Amino acid sequence: MARITLSYGGGGTLMHQLIDSLFMKEFDNKILSQKKDSAILSICGKKIAFTTDSYVVKPVFFPGGDIGSLAVYGTVNDLSVCGAKPLYISLAIIIEEGFDKKLLRKITASVALAAKKSGVYIVTGDTKVVEKGSCDRIFINTSGIGEVYYDRLSIDEIKAGDLVMISGPIGDHAVSVLSKREGMKFATNIKSDSAPLNNIIHIMLEASGKIRFMRDPTRGGVATTLNEIAKGRNFGISIDEKEIPVRSGVKEACEILGFDPLYLACEGRVLAIVAKADALKVLKAMRKDPIGRNAKIIGRVMSECRGMVYLNTIAGGKRLVDMLSGEQLPRIC
Amino acid sequence: MARITLSYGGGGTLMHQLIDSLFMKEFDNKILSQKKDSAILSICGKKIAFTTDSYVVKPVFFPGGDIGSLAVYGTVNDLSVCGAKPLYISLAIIIEEGFDKKLLRKITASVALAAKKSGVYIVTGDTKVVEKGSCDRIFINTSGIGEVYYDRLSIDEIKAGDLVMISGPIGDHAVSVLSKREGMKFATNIKSDSAPLNNIIHIMLEASGKIRFMRDPTRGGVATTLNEIAKGRNFGISIDEKEIPVRSGVKEACEILGFDPLYLACEGRVLAIVAKADALKVLKAMRKDPIGRNAKIIGRVMSECRGMVYLNTIAGGKRLVDMLSGEQLPRIC
Repeated sequence: MARITLSYGGGGTLMHQLIDSLFMKEFDNKILSQKKDSAILSICGKKIAFTTDSYVVKPVFFPGGDIGSLAVYGTVNDLSVCGAKPLYISLAIIIEEGFDKKLLRKITASVALAAKKSGVYIVTGDTKVVEKGSCDRIFINTSGIGEVYYDRLSIDEIKAGDLVMISGPIGDHAVSVLSKREGMKFATNIKSDSAPLNNIIHIMLEASGKIRFMRDPTRGGVATTLNEIAKGRNFGISIDEKEIPVRSGVKEACEILGFDPLYLACEGRVLAIVAKADALKVLKAMRKDPIGRNAKIIGRVMSECRGMVYLNTIAGGKRLVDMLSGEQLPRIC
Repeated sequence: MARITLSYGGGGTLMHQLIDSLFMKEFDNKILSQKKDSAILSICGKKIAFTTDSYVVKPVFFPGGDIGSLAVYGTVNDLSVCGAKPLYISLAIIIEEGFDKKLLRKITASVALAAKKSGVYIVTGDTKVVEKGSCDRIFINTSGIGEVYYDRLSIDEIKAGDLVMISGPIGDHAVSVLSKREGMKFATNIKSDSAPLNNIIHIMLEASGKIRFMRDPTRGGVATTLNEIAKGRNFGISIDEKEIPVRSGVKEACEILGFDPLYLACEGRVLAIVAKADALKVLKAMRKDPIGRNAKIIGRVMSECRGMVYLNTIAGGKRLVDMLSGEQLPRIC
């Protein structure tokens, strides 16, 4: 009998198969089939972005963040990359019986602070408690509503010659979470990049009207996000290994654990496809924001290799970069 | 060290304490402090209702429904009782590793059917998979957006002399879930009342402009919902045991298990406070809808006994009806 494995939640090929073969078919509607990070709704003539995410990160506290701030920033970011100003967040918590109230207070305070930093309000919520052993400590769902202020972000806008940019080093979040996981023993001073992207994205969109598309490379990392963008399109994407910012601590962790940083989740990075003519302008704008200080141009859109993503390696080779297949790291968000 | 117990999720006094002492304080804002079933947001001059709920019901399938339909109807109902037309629903699923794919298909089909019956679209979603033993089979969060078409529903509108109405028999949902729970062995033909309330509520609001307030009595049941309404107000509420519709199967289950039907959750019933002058008109309207066929006037709002709820018993006595304290039935939604 076919069963759901961890890979179905990893953001890679199996998850995409599940979404396409089951959810897209059963819930078939025009809004859902846009497959954006947020659904774009038309309410009373205004475009509203709406998104949801559950957070099951393990451990609940990690260097640079916790499940509370992660849950707020994740939803803020899903709205932001769609050109929306995040406004309102819902918070639904599932708690395991016996969970320490002091930790709940700490997580709640973290949610409140993250909301304040992002300029959003927590306006509605839900609390469920399940028996000991029926969930792993605490799960949080946030859904969010934003007002779309820039509605031209679309994969359809991407053209050969456009450049690929990332707002900072990749993989910090995944490595920070992993470093604190039971049974994992490796020293690192890497902190999660978990952060709200609404400000930097607003600065970028103010700087240029030629940003084609944006996405935050969470589960499945930069490799999977770029594959999602290129899949079935009349363009290919090539990225340059030497340009991709990866902290030395992340590189070391990858060497120890056998991971590829391209597949590691970020929780506070934006990947943008920008017209070549405006790329330097956008890069300058990104670097003005503290979280974009290390922004880089990492690749380009090509008319060849349609639907594919290629990496130009430091060694001078060229290799196909596939979507994440299987599960690298369960429960990093 | 203080720990979270099941009672914190039961909808009763402890949950209210947690909400007031922690969430309301930390997230302090005007919208949240309205404490409605949905947050009422003002977006581009239009009133939008926004709500969220996680579903952890055990077992996942029960007579009359399953976690999928329950998750859709629950959110549709939270929007509806605020005078909103439910439009868009998000669906976030947390699945335990090893969950049968066939059951996931069945639940997904049930979500799709429930959405169709309620006239809403599933527009955005999220899938997480956690390791075996890290959640109990499947949890679903739905959040929802609706357009407010009737904005005068408010506890502030309630006046002494108003009548209390319920759209049908109480406790069916809780008993149906309980009858299928492992270890529980009692025969019943009770099916869950789980159903979308948007239609009957629309009919009611068309029939009268004097419906003061509505709520669906879920966790904590009718007793807790009425206490939430009366608490801290300058009116009391009295209900008549002989008028409260309770199916014989529910009565029998309550006798066997020592439960009070007033505290049992419904998932497809609306409790309304209506001006006396319009009560019969509203009752007639409710009975036109199949799920309101057994609607009844069950009590009244009084100027005395402020902040309290009283039950006039069949035996001729009068007893104070408190908010649910402790946990009667964990995980009925």
